[in-house]
Amino acid sequence: MRPRVALNIKSVDYEFLQEQFGSKSELLLKSNPVHKKIPVLLHNGKPICESSIIVEYIDEVWSSSPSILPSDPHNRALARFWAAYLDEKVPLFWVITAASEEEKNAAVDQLKEVAVEMEGAYGETSRGGDFFGGDKIGVVDIAFGSMLGSARAIQVRVGVKLLDEEKTPGLVKWAEKFSADPAVKDVLPETEKLVEFAKLLSAKFKAAAASDPLRR
Amino acid sequence: MRPRVALNIKSVDYEFLQEQFGSKSELLLKSNPVHKKIPVLLHNGKPICESSIIVEYIDEVWSSSPSILPSDPHNRALARFWAAYLDEKVPLFWVITAASEEEKNAAVDQLKEVAVEMEGAYGETSRGGDFFGGDKIGVVDIAFGSMLGSARAIQVRVGVKLLDEEKTPGLVKWAEKFSADPAVKDVLPETEKLVEFAKLLSAKFKAAAASDPLRR
Repeated sequence: MRPRVALNIKSVDYEFLQEQFGSKSELLLKSNPVHKKIPVLLHNGKPICESSIIVEYIDEVWSSSPSILPSDPHNRALARFWAAYLDEKVPLFWVITAASEEEKNAAVDQLKEVAVEMEGAYGETSRGGDFFGGDKIGVVDIAFGSMLGSARAIQVRVGVKLLDEEKTPGLVKWAEKFSADPAVKDVLPETEKLVEFAKLLSAKFKAAAASDPLRR
Repeated sequence: MRPRVALNIKSVDYEFLQEQFGSKSELLLKSNPVHKKIPVLLHNGKPICESSIIVEYIDEVWSSSPSILPSDPHNRALARFWAAYLDEKVPLFWVITAASEEEKNAAVDQLKEVAVEMEGAYGETSRGGDFFGGDKIGVVDIAFGSMLGSARAIQVRVGVKLLDEEKTPGLVKWAEKFSADPAVKDVLPETEKLVEFAKLLSAKFKAAAASDPLRR
């Protein structure tokens, strides 16, 4: 989702190739031989891998405004800090698809802490605008926004609301604005599909976690 | 070490403040309230956190040559890809300080795979130069080079050589060139100190791992 939002912000036309669950295409294996993972952006015949790197690449190649990263180095560093912080939290969402009740609860607790931390970051950086860093969607919105689908799937599967009016009122509004943005609304995944996908993954991850002592 | 090498490449004078093991200074807690971790760069009274973000910040603020990231967007993305790949592997070094024999062996096996993968990346990107990406130290060298001390400490503690003439001949030469570079040689940690530090950390991490079901 992140690269698609970035391309939409830049008004770049693209072809969207989907992978089938349970198999990896030759094109994917050839394009990302190290991680063998989506997303991959193919541009000028060359692959770019890793969503956060793709987003920065898109911002640099289509450097006409609107820009996705702030131009000031300190604000850029701050935006990268929060995007990296969120990247580190992605595995918490996966844990929920597979783990024991105890582990699920621990992950949900951590995700709630992430939400409160991000509420603070939103308050500090939005400066009266609707988004992190100001009045247009930037790299932190893209990173955080790509988690909204998973957050909604958690609400369905686990019955826990990660964003609420009481603890994260700013983010509740932010999520509405982000989800309704023209660059975003057509690429937000449907919650029902994510829930089905989470169920499919559960079995797979349970097996993988059991066979890997380092849990990586 | 990464920010220091980057500052040295840019010939920027800096004051180096060290934290004491086992305690965190007020300045650190105030400067990096989210992660409470070094390194932090203080510049113009503002903190920048996370080593890879600091390195990009340094490259952007002191943008006069020599540059640390390639100027071409595709090469930048490729350099960021390998730097991020290495960042993901950092926890493997920590596992060795604390884990069971089985886990140690698994980590060492994974680190050997990392070395072989990086040998391939070095061959592809050095293009006849001494370093990743060409003839001067860049972001991948800095990320990978910051692991050399830990690799040497592993050699002492575990008796395993991660780089060798047989499987990673290019990296053996690269490590020599990198370690001898004027921007690097005075900031490379002493192996003996790292070994002592690893022993200190062992006890601490054992306790932390036991109390955290998610092992994060």
